[in-house]
Amino acid sequence: MKALFFDGNKAEYREDLPVPVREPHQSLIRVLLANVCSTDREILKGYRPGFKGVMGHEFVGEVIESGDASLVGRLVVGELNEGCGACLYCRTGREKHCLDRKVIGMSKDGCFAEYMTLATHLLHVVPDGLTPEKAVFAEPLAAALEITEQVKIDPSANAAVIGDGRLGFMCAQALALTGVDLTVIGHHADKLKMFEPYAKTRLAGEYTVASPYGEGRGYRELTADECFEYVVEASGAPGGFDLAMNIVRKMGTIILKSTYAGKKELDMSLIPVNEITVVGSRCGPFEPALRLLAEGKVSFPDVELYDLKDWRKAFGSKAFKAGFDFR
Amino acid sequence: MKALFFDGNKAEYREDLPVPVREPHQSLIRVLLANVCSTDREILKGYRPGFKGVMGHEFVGEVIESGDASLVGRLVVGELNEGCGACLYCRTGREKHCLDRKVIGMSKDGCFAEYMTLATHLLHVVPDGLTPEKAVFAEPLAAALEITEQVKIDPSANAAVIGDGRLGFMCAQALALTGVDLTVIGHHADKLKMFEPYAKTRLAGEYTVASPYGEGRGYRELTADECFEYVVEASGAPGGFDLAMNIVRKMGTIILKSTYAGKKELDMSLIPVNEITVVGSRCGPFEPALRLLAEGKVSFPDVELYDLKDWRKAFGSKAFKAGFDFR
Repeated sequence: MKALFFDGNKAEYREDLPVPVREPHQSLIRVLLANVCSTDREILKGYRPGFKGVMGHEFVGEVIESGDASLVGRLVVGELNEGCGACLYCRTGREKHCLDRKVIGMSKDGCFAEYMTLATHLLHVVPDGLTPEKAVFAEPLAAALEITEQVKIDPSANAAVIGDGRLGFMCAQALALTGVDLTVIGHHADKLKMFEPYAKTRLAGEYTVASPYGEGRGYRELTADECFEYVVEASGAPGGFDLAMNIVRKMGTIILKSTYAGKKELDMSLIPVNEITVVGSRCGPFEPALRLLAEGKVSFPDVELYDLKDWRKAFGSKAFKAGFDFR
Repeated sequence: MKALFFDGNKAEYREDLPVPVREPHQSLIRVLLANVCSTDREILKGYRPGFKGVMGHEFVGEVIESGDASLVGRLVVGELNEGCGACLYCRTGREKHCLDRKVIGMSKDGCFAEYMTLATHLLHVVPDGLTPEKAVFAEPLAAALEITEQVKIDPSANAAVIGDGRLGFMCAQALALTGVDLTVIGHHADKLKMFEPYAKTRLAGEYTVASPYGEGRGYRELTADECFEYVVEASGAPGGFDLAMNIVRKMGTIILKSTYAGKKELDMSLIPVNEITVVGSRCGPFEPALRLLAEGKVSFPDVELYDLKDWRKAFGSKAFKAGFDFR
């Protein structure tokens, strides 16, 4: 079968890989669409040392074989993380944090291939009427819904999303559904336009001032009214957290979605003194994501679809989202 | 009257200060007992630049004059922070975070004096039968109860307090009341003994290992079972946060009580990847603190009491708590 294989150093398009054989607890899936995520790009830069295998983790497919006969022929999406099933995290609803978990496209063969296997309990049936082109957004939307899974968002309050990229778009869509007074802050006036149907937009530069000491730019002092009860940091840049600390209200909440690598200097005393809560947030619940997609409550720009052999174009695409069409 | 006055650089014992005159919204209080807090020691080191006035913020006193006649003659304790009453924080139950707040002993005359004034709405009547010696713990206990005010502590879970000093003692007492499986971690075997009636104790060194590279000590890898759902950082040392990150479970909560100054290097990606929540926690609710003290649900070692003119001895005391007796 065709697949995009990561050999530990680089990705290569291959047509000679065998169709995988499912284990009893797994299903065999024919992949229809698979999207590229920035994590896939990070893997090419060495984000997952030691991983060799088929890349990719955002997909829609059709179940070909399964221990659960009712699934055969159904359109499905799937979660990334398969835990050991026995440890404390697996036994307490935290399978995605199992220390021995297998992650598709990161420590187990993924979905940039004609066929893949996945633990059957990680599959979610796509509701009738939801097209594969839309269902493929279930995984990133689920990650955004992890925000409301973790934090009670008061709809009367205000909230800011920092970041006008894909992650920010998903988070803003999820937050807008709460009815909260939403502002999106980014560096790109053109990208910010996408958010205008449901959010106020601000350029990040509006919050900074030139230092009177000529040492670059710092943050200007804000009034309580200008600040936000909830701030979602989804910029993917280390400076995003500093901006978040500057615009969050006392006793407010920062939700940290960005996972930039490297260490960061932080004045830790600001957290207790201002009683800030910082919530780290990662993968989220698929079922509400599928419901919201099926009901048309959220919407995304069209995916730019490529043939798998043109994977370099897809990885380099500047489109909102690029993916592979296996149909 | 007698008072301990901070002149902007140093503290001095004086006997020539006038009895303060209350404004209409304030009460005049005769101080009976006042305790020294580590914040008072920090002020001597320059923690509150610009402050000149009477030091101290932990007290029990008797109301001498008040716009609220029912308070006159009553034993009271009092909150530290008086807000402007008009801003967003004051209007939304966050008076202690008002940007224009006055703080006794830090930006307004405090309680290391025979008499003090305080906004009447910040006073709390001491319940009948509660001695001044115990009531004086209302303020630090309230700060510890801010933990359960902010975070739902699941009594079936486990929790750790890092720090075997006064702050750790208060936090451990508050947490123990939830029924949670409690461990206190500190550097001092002698201090840890104090916690044994209601907590397991561990030496912090048990969590570290010598680096095989000869670069000092690092943390050993822990199993999920060894880790904690809740970790309260009350050590007052920057290294406490690193230990907290090491012993908290995935999707667990760190409550940050320590307010050490200075910047700290942090691998921020650990927070989203492990979905850790960090809750900054400061001053707390007085009424439950007074109830718990009156009911004998919490207890503290005796305060070492000094005459105000011996303030240097009190500030230098190694006792659990030192204070001044004005009776």
